[in-house]
Amino acid sequence: MTKEATSLEIKHRKKALQALAELGRKIVEDIRNAQPPKLKIPSRSTSNIIYDRKNRYFVLGPRYGIRSAGSMKQIKKVAQLLCTADFARELIESGKFATLREMYYTAEGWEVGPFHDQGESDAIIEDLEATFGLKRESLGLTPEEDGAAVFGQIVFREGDVTIDATKAGRGGYTIPPTIDDVEFVKCRAKRIIAVETMGMYHRLIQEEAWKKFDALIVGLKGQAARATRRFLKRANEELGLPVYLNCDGDPFGYHIGMVIISGSANLAYINHELAVPDAKYIGVTASDIINYKLPTDKLRELDIVRLKQLLKDPRYNTEFWQYEIKKMLEIGRKAEQQAFAKYGLAYVVNDYLPAKLKEVEGKEFLGKG
Amino acid sequence: MTKEATSLEIKHRKKALQALAELGRKIVEDIRNAQPPKLKIPSRSTSNIIYDRKNRYFVLGPRYGIRSAGSMKQIKKVAQLLCTADFARELIESGKFATLREMYYTAEGWEVGPFHDQGESDAIIEDLEATFGLKRESLGLTPEEDGAAVFGQIVFREGDVTIDATKAGRGGYTIPPTIDDVEFVKCRAKRIIAVETMGMYHRLIQEEAWKKFDALIVGLKGQAARATRRFLKRANEELGLPVYLNCDGDPFGYHIGMVIISGSANLAYINHELAVPDAKYIGVTASDIINYKLPTDKLRELDIVRLKQLLKDPRYNTEFWQYEIKKMLEIGRKAEQQAFAKYGLAYVVNDYLPAKLKEVEGKEFLGKG
Repeated sequence: MTKEATSLEIKHRKKALQALAELGRKIVEDIRNAQPPKLKIPSRSTSNIIYDRKNRYFVLGPRYGIRSAGSMKQIKKVAQLLCTADFARELIESGKFATLREMYYTAEGWEVGPFHDQGESDAIIEDLEATFGLKRESLGLTPEEDGAAVFGQIVFREGDVTIDATKAGRGGYTIPPTIDDVEFVKCRAKRIIAVETMGMYHRLIQEEAWKKFDALIVGLKGQAARATRRFLKRANEELGLPVYLNCDGDPFGYHIGMVIISGSANLAYINHELAVPDAKYIGVTASDIINYKLPTDKLRELDIVRLKQLLKDPRYNTEFWQYEIKKMLEIGRKAEQQAFAKYGLAYVVNDYLPAKLKEVEGKEFLGKG
Repeated sequence: MTKEATSLEIKHRKKALQALAELGRKIVEDIRNAQPPKLKIPSRSTSNIIYDRKNRYFVLGPRYGIRSAGSMKQIKKVAQLLCTADFARELIESGKFATLREMYYTAEGWEVGPFHDQGESDAIIEDLEATFGLKRESLGLTPEEDGAAVFGQIVFREGDVTIDATKAGRGGYTIPPTIDDVEFVKCRAKRIIAVETMGMYHRLIQEEAWKKFDALIVGLKGQAARATRRFLKRANEELGLPVYLNCDGDPFGYHIGMVIISGSANLAYINHELAVPDAKYIGVTASDIINYKLPTDKLRELDIVRLKQLLKDPRYNTEFWQYEIKKMLEIGRKAEQQAFAKYGLAYVVNDYLPAKLKEVEGKEFLGKG
């Protein structure tokens, strides 16, 4: 789409190409030394996933696996990994992107033979990500889905196109899988309010919460896509914007927030690019259910099991979370963000959010409309 | 968000307010005549859903149900319907929108009592839609989800914001639930190519299919949202753009296309605003699987059951569909759009689409890059 690579794109491509070249050099060196090429790949097994208390997210431990072209059992995997690395090089050099699914089908044309299923090709890509400490997006490989919607006073540049996120339509600016290549040109917002549902996203836009709170409104569409998490991290680090997460008051809402804050275990190898440990949960809590007399639903069996898991999860090992999880188990009820509509459509913007923002920023917002 | 209503918005609001006022007048008349208010509501039961061969979509038949405030069993529903109608009036008059979920929670504050679950409030809204022959969006009630992504040479106006769909970012312009209020300012595209997956959408944008084929590229994100279907219908009728549907070669892909073409049975009451009977399927067929030697998956039990259902569905009663459904059952295989990646990432734009477009338009496209 974009003819000329931006400086940001060039920087990313260079880093990825260096990592790929390093891999190639290592292979060539082994061959020159008359050794079967060997690859040292960080282990992604559960026992090597560690919660890093200092950084406050999951990381990989020190364990590695060796994959050797000298082993009959491993040689196909080594060859597939090198073909995948070569495909990534082609993508990066041509400035193109392929989905994981396209990658899987591309392998149908390889001499080394196709993958049995996409699970196999995805695992090889994760091997490369873990080895390089680079996201697959940096290797030209993107997930299928776009990221969240963003509305508010920020201007993006993608290639030679400049996009004002207040002028991209009611639907907002869509975070592309290639968010790392997007430049933040200008931002007048002072914070980010990310909401779980698109219903709440449209409510906040309609009630002009983005103006009232000087905020970028981000519509997560449920569990946040990688691109969304990367956007939040970049906005937090590069623009210094605090990130607030407004989710449903149930274990799944809690966890949608937490995955943004502390990353997920199965992405431990790349959480350093995705986690936003300083993001704050301002979503519906068990206390809110009581204090606001919200319409609720009974916890299902699954909710109860999930809440009990969260109680033991190191990411929830804070006074706030332990209290709110236990309280929800005690009252046996959950509530959605949109339940505030009981008090009128504007209540969430005029009353609820100002109260929550005051809690986290200690500052009065002129919410009352 | 938008301060001033556009002429399009005013037109839509007027129509909806007239329908609501008519409903109110009817109630008042009954009361003046000392009769318990009665409502005549089109039946949405399966037996009243008819495939209209002339219009080529499902419509409601002539049967009606009477809901009377004189019946102890019905009075609560009559009252809820009137409260809902009044809430819609408020929304329209204030230029606001509420989600179906917010509507459900809003009823928590009504004297007539809340709904048991959202199924109940949704049914009441469908009653109003069927009664008025107006989409719920015209009554200020929107679904949660946004519609498809659009990329290409079209300019939209939403209130006082003008959006060029080549300049809204790689993610494209997002069709909002309120698409009926969006003006088509300018369109240089000559056709629409709608694709099932966002992977294919990004492929077509990257390979500049929108330029090569003078097309708007629409990323459906699976089963098309109501807003997407409405957009396709409006673009087809108002801009005269032919609509082509490129879906996966499996029963679910076939049906994603067909629902756009002929509407769904459960929206029979509103298909006249959604169906695009002249849209054409240019997605992967069983014949393509054979001719292009595509990588395939075996049909699952569920696929086979579904294909057999489609064979008997009146919407598939054409030579083309009967042949392709039987052929897929015969070969026992299915294939995805992205399977063309076997021949390189650009193959779908350089070879497949030109061949398909030639079939439907009888015209050569300079696809080869």
